Amino acid sequence: MSAPPAVEALIDLMAKLPGLGPRSARRAVLHLLRKRALLLLPLADALSEVARTARECVTCGNVATADECPICTDPKRATGTLCVVEDVADLWALERTGAFRGRYHVLGGTLSALDDMGPEELGLPRLEARIARDGISEVILALNATVDGLTTAHYIADLLENRVLVTSLAQGVPVGGELDYLDDGTIGAALKARGRL
Amino acid sequence: MSAPPAVEALIDLMAKLPGLGPRSARRAVLHLLRKRALLLLPLADALSEVARTARECVTCGNVATADECPICTDPKRATGTLCVVEDVADLWALERTGAFRGRYHVLGGTLSALDDMGPEELGLPRLEARIARDGISEVILALNATVDGLTTAHYIADLLENRVLVTSLAQGVPVGGELDYLDDGTIGAALKARGRL
Repeated sequence: MSAPPAVEALIDLMAKLPGLGPRSARRAVLHLLRKRALLLLPLADALSEVARTARECVTCGNVATADECPICTDPKRATGTLCVVEDVADLWALERTGAFRGRYHVLGGTLSALDDMGPEELGLPRLEARIARDGISEVILALNATVDGLTTAHYIADLLENRVLVTSLAQGVPVGGELDYLDDGTIGAALKARGRL
Repeated sequence: MSAPPAVEALIDLMAKLPGLGPRSARRAVLHLLRKRALLLLPLADALSEVARTARECVTCGNVATADECPICTDPKRATGTLCVVEDVADLWALERTGAFRGRYHVLGGTLSALDDMGPEELGLPRLEARIARDGISEVILALNATVDGLTTAHYIADLLENRVLVTSLAQGVPVGGELDYLDDGTIGAALKARGRL
């Protein structure tokens, strides 16, 4: 063993992060040791702080450091529109666009017979209760365009039928996309949903 | 801001690690939050522990948690042979091979007029003192085969001439290397240093 046990333990843990392997974890730890004041100490503090305070927002499921997340407690956000996403990463992706100013609901997964994820496990009764309680008028289903995501979207749309307007993200050509490189399904969907210029 | 400030701060710090950018840092932090008990808490503890205890080995410059590193305090390692490396990453790379059982000396860089690194800044007087004090009989220069590395190696070899045997790593064809893909300099060096089979 060339490094002290505490340093080896840190390298082993860093190597478990997505995007880092054993070699890049070693490189990252050496970088931390070289930038002690600038990076190692602040990162140790930030990680301890997050480990101490981070939890799930009781209302929407986003990451929070209090009972509710910054979005649920923001009085400037519209309360009538609810955007349903699969996980927190999707919520953050939507937030980065700045295009949505309503509230969110994080499912934490999709319906999946293989993974034993039924409507109960996905917290759909909780979603229904929230829609009734908060007087939601539109539910935007922003689930991934995968088989599981579409299945879940259709299930939720059926569940909420006649109670609230249910919409979903448009399917079509991505910005900057070239037709020649797109799959047939996407081109077909874009053609079907074409609009006036 | 979609995440609480403490989480955003952690993401910003993680993005400064080599091998991670803003996007992969976000992914890593979400992974940590999902694996709270298994990864987030142990990593926070390990990082605090390293931040508290890690320092430079007073003898060789390796990472240590005491005054001396595990290699310098290992009584089973030969004391007569000293391997000089540029930085700690190189020391660890040599240790992984298990091919060297002597002691190390980490320079922490190379001679460089541009970066104002002279013999004093590189601690060469300290290296000379150590060689005399520890009764070193051979100094292996395991510096990178770059221009700066070679310059530094020649300088040290001149400095220690007639006092101790100075050797350097062999240059040649890497294991598994194909001649067709090697540069002319490497093939030339391998030909010049050819040996009996």
